[in-house]
Amino acid sequence: MSRSQEVLDEEFIRLSSKTLGISESRLSGMLKRRVVQKVSGFFPDHYRFDKGIAGLETGTTLFKTDTGIETVRGFPKIQRAMMLKPSIAAHFEGVPAVVVEEKMNGYNVRITSIQGKVVALTRGGLICPYTSEKVSEDVGEHFFNDHPDLVLCGEMVGPDNPYVPKDIYPEVNSISFFIFDVRHKNSGEPLTMREKHELCEGYTIKTVPYFGEYSLDEAADSITGIIRELGHRGREGVVIKDPEMKLPAIKYTCSQSTNSDLRYAFGFYNDYGRDFFFSRVVREGFQSVEWNEDEDTLRDRYCRLGESILKPMVSTIRKRERGERITENVQIRVRNLETAQKFEEHLRRMGIDAQFDEPQLVDGQYLIVIRKFNQSTNDRTSATLNGQLW
Amino acid sequence: MSRSQEVLDEEFIRLSSKTLGISESRLSGMLKRRVVQKVSGFFPDHYRFDKGIAGLETGTTLFKTDTGIETVRGFPKIQRAMMLKPSIAAHFEGVPAVVVEEKMNGYNVRITSIQGKVVALTRGGLICPYTSEKVSEDVGEHFFNDHPDLVLCGEMVGPDNPYVPKDIYPEVNSISFFIFDVRHKNSGEPLTMREKHELCEGYTIKTVPYFGEYSLDEAADSITGIIRELGHRGREGVVIKDPEMKLPAIKYTCSQSTNSDLRYAFGFYNDYGRDFFFSRVVREGFQSVEWNEDEDTLRDRYCRLGESILKPMVSTIRKRERGERITENVQIRVRNLETAQKFEEHLRRMGIDAQFDEPQLVDGQYLIVIRKFNQSTNDRTSATLNGQLW
Repeated sequence: MSRSQEVLDEEFIRLSSKTLGISESRLSGMLKRRVVQKVSGFFPDHYRFDKGIAGLETGTTLFKTDTGIETVRGFPKIQRAMMLKPSIAAHFEGVPAVVVEEKMNGYNVRITSIQGKVVALTRGGLICPYTSEKVSEDVGEHFFNDHPDLVLCGEMVGPDNPYVPKDIYPEVNSISFFIFDVRHKNSGEPLTMREKHELCEGYTIKTVPYFGEYSLDEAADSITGIIRELGHRGREGVVIKDPEMKLPAIKYTCSQSTNSDLRYAFGFYNDYGRDFFFSRVVREGFQSVEWNEDEDTLRDRYCRLGESILKPMVSTIRKRERGERITENVQIRVRNLETAQKFEEHLRRMGIDAQFDEPQLVDGQYLIVIRKFNQSTNDRTSATLNGQLW
Repeated sequence: MSRSQEVLDEEFIRLSSKTLGISESRLSGMLKRRVVQKVSGFFPDHYRFDKGIAGLETGTTLFKTDTGIETVRGFPKIQRAMMLKPSIAAHFEGVPAVVVEEKMNGYNVRITSIQGKVVALTRGGLICPYTSEKVSEDVGEHFFNDHPDLVLCGEMVGPDNPYVPKDIYPEVNSISFFIFDVRHKNSGEPLTMREKHELCEGYTIKTVPYFGEYSLDEAADSITGIIRELGHRGREGVVIKDPEMKLPAIKYTCSQSTNSDLRYAFGFYNDYGRDFFFSRVVREGFQSVEWNEDEDTLRDRYCRLGESILKPMVSTIRKRERGERITENVQIRVRNLETAQKFEEHLRRMGIDAQFDEPQLVDGQYLIVIRKFNQSTNDRTSATLNGQLW
């Protein structure tokens, strides 16, 4: 570590200790254990929490500005209802009504402005150069000139999503940002639902689809209807919130989305975690029980689940048998090739092995296909086809 | 630790160090870290390897006898072929032919005689008092009087299996022992296939069904035929061996058995490991590719897999919804109630929470139903039904 880096760390520790109320020695230990990591490149050095600790969420990011430390809190993990009715009753006890928003399927970003520059943070607290370019177009700097103390939390969705390819939103041609929460810097405190909607309307900032407010008694039945309809349209699910945002939100998803996740992941069966598969299978079981399904409906669910698991795996094995390489293909669309270069560096920093195809000029933007190599699935499949034992 | 136990450990360490060629300090460290554990009760104290280490398999058991230390090596883990043809070609390269035996579905035991007493060891190296009673009936002491230096390795199968309930062998009414390997004490070296068969015939000791010897060229096709036929009969699969037993054996199983495992385990979905599910699903994928299945056959496989996963889970959730407790029911049949008491103690020692029903006298033996409580599945299912979030 160079002399100037050490000085930066020391200054950061001293200032952050005061802001966060964590002792300097503890913060210093976190840096050593890499629970807190320095992020360099594209932007003045900043720090991110790689794990949740000391009441701060994973992905919490700290910036040193001229006036001190600015904290963007990590987006809190939203817990999942497996059984809708009892979960709503238990979780929202004492609240007169809940509001329901669509849970969109893309990637979670937090947007804010640091010393006048708009930055988009990934869930883990890295600045994504691609997303930063995109949201500058969607949100603009005007909002943050008026509200430098706010953080817009939302989902980036569309076919030009470079993390998880999903093309299920006909309303999005490329990639677009939909807000679900507006929160304060430093404290992470959210605005109420009403405040959020009023604010976003004023700046014509898009919010995720809103399904309305429901009394606690009617919520489960109404949401079940919404879920069935969203499922038919291939969309993910809902987030259920306290309108005052005093209780944490909960989420609930469609069977179609669960199956779509499995279909995607089993194409790279050795790269995704065992828990990814297991938790989705269990969701199917509980939903079927809550919906009190008859034999025929259950049988459809069995076949759908089995197909979502086996079909992509068989396809991957056959591809590999033909000598093809298994890649996860995504794409980005940029106005500026420099953004693509920065994004390539960003992926490398995340430890993702990817190859960028030649940019194609489409309607004044560069479309670039990115091939991520799923080494574990490639290697395991080849070895097994060649007779390696398990 | 009492004074006399310490003395025993010291003596054991001194003697075992010589026998195994492991330094006294290393052995002493293994005892402290509980890689090697002392087993007390039912039998003079002995020691078992809880993990494979220093070239000794998991479940290796050491007995101190009047003449020194006798070692019963743990049964080696048999690796699995996922793709039959390339696995046989790669694994048995240079061997002119392989032999094929049925892999029976029960629990693995090693039987030997220690100072004139027949003992049955579980995979982990514990003496099972129930199995010890049973194999004494099946094998008798005569064999071990002639061959005190041998270990009979085989499978206990039948409806009175107290570990994994399986009732797929019409030839077994209660529980019976089928030998697959005969090995030497201490070295663990196996007899050749021919030596094993001659020896077992001489003592009318049952061996697992034998399907014959196949040249390396024809083996994969012949075994595929055997597997299809075994599958139709609901049986597990095969073990493929070098007739000279110089190479380790490999195993290959039927899709029906894979599905049957899943059907069973998903009834206790939160008690079985994630890997248990995942590895079985992957087997289905590779078998389908190797068998080059068409769309219709694949579709059957999808539905079968989905049903094996979801049906038992849904049934468990519904049972719990009705307030029933989820138990894994097994049974034992003993001539002597003392054996049942000892077995109850043995299960407790293994950390299994079980309740023994009242013994019923059937044809001169006591039939006892044992209900094992799958606490994790019970608790998780109840909590989720009551709205606990994931």
